[in-house]
Amino acid sequence: MSGAGASRKVPPDALLDRVFLSRVVEPGDENAGRWVREHGAGAVVQRLRRDSEPPLPGIGPRRWEGLRARAERADPARDLAVAQDAGMRFVCPGDTEWPGQLDDLGDARPLGLWVRGPADLRMWALRSVALVGARACTEYGAHMAATLAAALAEEGWVVVSGGAYGVDGAAHRGALGAGGATVAVLACGADRPYPRGHAQLIDRIAEQGLVVGELPPGEHPTPSRFIVRNRVIAALTRGTVVVEAAHRSGSLSTARAARRLGRHTMGVPGPATSGLSAGVHDLLRQDAVLVTDAAEIIELVGDMGELAPERRGPVLPRDLLEPRARAVLSALPGPRAARADEIARGAQTTEDDAVARLYELRSLGWVERHGDGWKLTRQAMMTARTGRRPC
Amino acid sequence: MSGAGASRKVPPDALLDRVFLSRVVEPGDENAGRWVREHGAGAVVQRLRRDSEPPLPGIGPRRWEGLRARAERADPARDLAVAQDAGMRFVCPGDTEWPGQLDDLGDARPLGLWVRGPADLRMWALRSVALVGARACTEYGAHMAATLAAALAEEGWVVVSGGAYGVDGAAHRGALGAGGATVAVLACGADRPYPRGHAQLIDRIAEQGLVVGELPPGEHPTPSRFIVRNRVIAALTRGTVVVEAAHRSGSLSTARAARRLGRHTMGVPGPATSGLSAGVHDLLRQDAVLVTDAAEIIELVGDMGELAPERRGPVLPRDLLEPRARAVLSALPGPRAARADEIARGAQTTEDDAVARLYELRSLGWVERHGDGWKLTRQAMMTARTGRRPC
Repeated sequence: MSGAGASRKVPPDALLDRVFLSRVVEPGDENAGRWVREHGAGAVVQRLRRDSEPPLPGIGPRRWEGLRARAERADPARDLAVAQDAGMRFVCPGDTEWPGQLDDLGDARPLGLWVRGPADLRMWALRSVALVGARACTEYGAHMAATLAAALAEEGWVVVSGGAYGVDGAAHRGALGAGGATVAVLACGADRPYPRGHAQLIDRIAEQGLVVGELPPGEHPTPSRFIVRNRVIAALTRGTVVVEAAHRSGSLSTARAARRLGRHTMGVPGPATSGLSAGVHDLLRQDAVLVTDAAEIIELVGDMGELAPERRGPVLPRDLLEPRARAVLSALPGPRAARADEIARGAQTTEDDAVARLYELRSLGWVERHGDGWKLTRQAMMTARTGRRPC
Repeated sequence: MSGAGASRKVPPDALLDRVFLSRVVEPGDENAGRWVREHGAGAVVQRLRRDSEPPLPGIGPRRWEGLRARAERADPARDLAVAQDAGMRFVCPGDTEWPGQLDDLGDARPLGLWVRGPADLRMWALRSVALVGARACTEYGAHMAATLAAALAEEGWVVVSGGAYGVDGAAHRGALGAGGATVAVLACGADRPYPRGHAQLIDRIAEQGLVVGELPPGEHPTPSRFIVRNRVIAALTRGTVVVEAAHRSGSLSTARAARRLGRHTMGVPGPATSGLSAGVHDLLRQDAVLVTDAAEIIELVGDMGELAPERRGPVLPRDLLEPRARAVLSALPGPRAARADEIARGAQTTEDDAVARLYELRSLGWVERHGDGWKLTRQAMMTARTGRRPC
């Protein structure tokens, strides 16, 4: 599941079409999204590749020429090869790893995502929260981001952020420091850590978690790409927490996107005298919920209604689990909690891989975090005893 | 209007009955409030005074004996005399100075209020906001209380608080420092400054503003009297702002009372790491509105609907104004703003008295604050020109 193409259901040609479009179309282009929805990716690619084709409806000749110029330079097979060399895979609608909640973005849905890291994006996104905020945060903001991320990770939640300096970095580090799961969604190619000063951090996230980007290998971030990226963070997660943000801070756009998508929006209060909390306070004066600790965040995002696997017990029978997840599940010692390194030895895999599987199993209702360790859920133990899935 | 009995409409006997009950019955006693409502204050006093009378319905013999013992020692004529010597007056339902919004308290409505200070309680309460919070507040809390109070005072709002150390004291001082209006509602006799360390502050409030208490002269505060007092702060004002409060802080009871009474409840956020903001954050996670400056408070409490005098122009014609208020109004130089000391000289009164009248005129829609000074409202100038009240 972690190599490019593993468990894939999308036919190779359709995959290449979307890789091609991912190179030609800017992220979040709703016109392009509409063409793909109405005509199919293949038809759009053909129109862009053939000299004699007229522009697609609703697009001016100048913009069409721009897309055509990019299309001439696109080489999807090479992009896939470069990605594979960099340990990246291309995940798109139809894949088993595609996070279905991104479909809420409508025609602004990404054409696909380039993904680095051992975990399954779909599984991890099921129980994830976004922690975002100011790049130039205060010590208080960094402290809150790290503390909340660590506590969320300890409760088995995946922390999603944008890999930036300040709040984002503190959130990623807080989750990693707690031995937890974190996802960085970049506004550039997932092979190109940005900002440069976070190269090590982002590589570490790619080893222990996931680094995700809409843009194909080698692409640089631009101001508009940061804003457009934020909708992916909002859509992937069950809710967005803004830790510190000045008036007009970019991180507020993540919260606004979350609100539009019907996700929970939350804010961490700060001193009324702090300009770096002013944007958060604006949100809180609208409809965001004030949160001061991880329990308050989980109280909100954990109310998953019908989706909540822990209410119904495991959502997939053991036999249908992916083999490596089954191996990790078998390595769990039963009612007592075990640490990830111990489980990894039992499952004959690396600790990073074991953690990735444990978070998937968490999403499926099989295991739960318990302090530093992991153990079977009560429902999973009942299933093991009775051989039946509880309902 | 500032001496005991001035402008009074309540007959002397009825006044003495309520002074008597104010000495015998604990503040907030809803049973006693119901007796007074059902039988009248005079009948309740007679029952308490006569040996042979059976207890009032719904009261045990032991409690009845307690009230009877207090009734034996009560001497309302002496209480009134002591109060007058201390510059205090007794204001009760039926008086022109009685703030009608206290009637929202139902049977827990005060039997009357002992008032020290030159201003008219009813007029001042019309445009007032409560600022309350922790006694052991942080520097941040004291700073916010003082800043908000000063800014509210500069906008012509009256700042009501409880006279305590910490947030309360900072709020009173902030309003006084801005040359503004402030009211201290005490949990003891209004002649007995509490806490002792605030004796000077409370005396200054009595000179420039108002010191108010439900309890008759000489009475001490008790823990339950503090809590019961908070309902008066909540009911007098258009909204309550909690500046800092730990979990279970007494000042939260003011906010809860405000909510029950349909007043606005507001909270000033602080760091999520501060235990002294935890109680405020709890409120904000319920239905209180987050506020960070005076403009946000006024945006909420200033929406007075039909009550708003500035929308309809002056609510009382000039001829019906109290003579001293009319003198102050005549001393206003017209369209330009004048300082209170200048107006006081023109009206041949003290500056404190001029400020008291100016706040009354503000409540009535005649004048407005403008930076350090006061000027006629646009509507007042139109009235002066046309001789008609605008509507």
